[in-house]
Amino acid sequence: MSDVMNDRIITLDYGSGGMKTSELIESVFLPAFDNEYLRGLGDGAVLDIPDGAGRPVFSTDSFVVSPWRFPGGDIGKLAVCGTVNDVSMAGGVPAYLSLSLIIEEGFLFEDLKSVAASIASEAKKAGVAVVTGDTKVVERGKGDGIYINTAGIGFAAFDIPGKKSVRPGDSVILSGSPGRHGAAVMMARAGLLAENSALKSDCMALDKMARSALEAGKGGIRILRDPTRGGAATTLSEFVEGTDMSIEIDENLIHVDPEVSAACAILGLDPLYCACEGRMLAICDRDAAPDVIKAIRKIPGGEGAAEIGKVTGGAPGKVFLKTAVGGSRILQKLAGMQLPRIC
Amino acid sequence: MSDVMNDRIITLDYGSGGMKTSELIESVFLPAFDNEYLRGLGDGAVLDIPDGAGRPVFSTDSFVVSPWRFPGGDIGKLAVCGTVNDVSMAGGVPAYLSLSLIIEEGFLFEDLKSVAASIASEAKKAGVAVVTGDTKVVERGKGDGIYINTAGIGFAAFDIPGKKSVRPGDSVILSGSPGRHGAAVMMARAGLLAENSALKSDCMALDKMARSALEAGKGGIRILRDPTRGGAATTLSEFVEGTDMSIEIDENLIHVDPEVSAACAILGLDPLYCACEGRMLAICDRDAAPDVIKAIRKIPGGEGAAEIGKVTGGAPGKVFLKTAVGGSRILQKLAGMQLPRIC
Repeated sequence: MSDVMNDRIITLDYGSGGMKTSELIESVFLPAFDNEYLRGLGDGAVLDIPDGAGRPVFSTDSFVVSPWRFPGGDIGKLAVCGTVNDVSMAGGVPAYLSLSLIIEEGFLFEDLKSVAASIASEAKKAGVAVVTGDTKVVERGKGDGIYINTAGIGFAAFDIPGKKSVRPGDSVILSGSPGRHGAAVMMARAGLLAENSALKSDCMALDKMARSALEAGKGGIRILRDPTRGGAATTLSEFVEGTDMSIEIDENLIHVDPEVSAACAILGLDPLYCACEGRMLAICDRDAAPDVIKAIRKIPGGEGAAEIGKVTGGAPGKVFLKTAVGGSRILQKLAGMQLPRIC
Repeated sequence: MSDVMNDRIITLDYGSGGMKTSELIESVFLPAFDNEYLRGLGDGAVLDIPDGAGRPVFSTDSFVVSPWRFPGGDIGKLAVCGTVNDVSMAGGVPAYLSLSLIIEEGFLFEDLKSVAASIASEAKKAGVAVVTGDTKVVERGKGDGIYINTAGIGFAAFDIPGKKSVRPGDSVILSGSPGRHGAAVMMARAGLLAENSALKSDCMALDKMARSALEAGKGGIRILRDPTRGGAATTLSEFVEGTDMSIEIDENLIHVDPEVSAACAILGLDPLYCACEGRMLAICDRDAAPDVIKAIRKIPGGEGAAEIGKVTGGAPGKVFLKTAVGGSRILQKLAGMQLPRIC
């Protein structure tokens, strides 16, 4: 172990699969994520299925956010939340995570430990265990500090029928201000964010919020999604894409936090196209909507939940925004590169 | 779709999560991996559990091999085989894969399609479905063409007791010449490999080999592993690390293909420390060994299976190599960077 403790930076040796890789696992990862599956150190983890668990729900994301540490979180927190949220949006209760790192030679050992600590802390909060993993190291100039992949397994607790079940009159619910994550990362990248700025990423695990909403909705929730890359506008477009439905949202019903508005004005971005990493968009039966909104508001981070519009049937596949001054414009999926490496 | 067809290279837009990302999914990934789970295009896939399936087996690997196309395969084939093999070595029958790409801006569209085709072909052979995925694009100079992560889910069909069950007298079995993958990749990287060289990676899925061996072993197999990074020597060391057992292998029993020996001589490498991507190392009860070897030999790629040594009890945690000329040396885990970015 002494070698590890004496190294200040990650070198290519740590990705060799030999002695140094073992040392890294034993000095950083095992202590951070300690559990019986990981301790086996086999090629794969043989998992337990919780009593009464439904079908497995499986999802993955790679994270390349730049900068890797941003106001409100870091790539480790994001890598846990992103996959936990994908599993949750599909109706699963997240249970297990895999963790795979691609580290650029020269990354600081202390930064790796801090990322591992973030992962451990966020995984604990979301009730998921990191059960299997992998570490690769690439030469300087072939990466950018650290990239992380997580894959997640949960077990289906709710059946969410999906976009085919959406019908006119359904409510469109958003759990809080859009755009915080994208705006915070872009401002940080541009070096424009003051230390004490109120603008922080909304990055958080949505497992509890999704569960509360689904329980309160009593089968009335048609579809759930966390609007990440492409933002709320892109997710709304995807909700109706290829269906006979349209969506009308009302700018007056969408509360954008003032620090997000200000950042977007500086950056020339639209908050509706800026990524969220801790928001939930839902379409649900209008009768169920009040209970769903109430349930979401009870969850920390969901206090701003509100109906932002309705499903309509007039213009298949289209999303309309009624602007604050009474006009109307069509929202399409994000086109072109607005926000690279936001997650 | 026309945009995609007209682009020759992958640009940052394709990782934006918007229009271009959708086009990429619809023009490349959906046609290559078509299945009901992927068609849902949700955040996560809700999986079916095959009848009579055991506990889920979960594994992940990120692949950063350089060059990404090498004699005997490419990063796509490797990404499928690597994870299929990890699941198989843990006693699982592989069923589902996630696929996550980190592409460097400027990667050729036609190369991406060729990697997708490799993945699809290899997945089909191994009977696994690519059910969920993600694509990120990073700027030029922040990656190296393409990095791939796969995570795999299988279902346990066999209980492999692991290193704690290993006992003196057990057989150590290797399924074929060690070191082909590492030697082929290193020779290709150095530009030393002729087009028509016999040296090709051994990269292949071991699901059928593992299954046949486990069935033939009738509970006699203690531990299975595919010796990738660090090679056979590192895997053998890990087999006895932290146990009271030692291993004695005999150089005269290890057939190293002549093209591997030649390449290793040029590169200054030891074949026992060179990665395999299609070999299996097993420790099994000596009485079961003949049947296990016979079963492995029947599987294409396993024709060279042989006992290469025995478990002994004299020197806890140590691996001894009896050399061809009658000497003996200790094999340790790979120390230092011998073979970076081999997988």
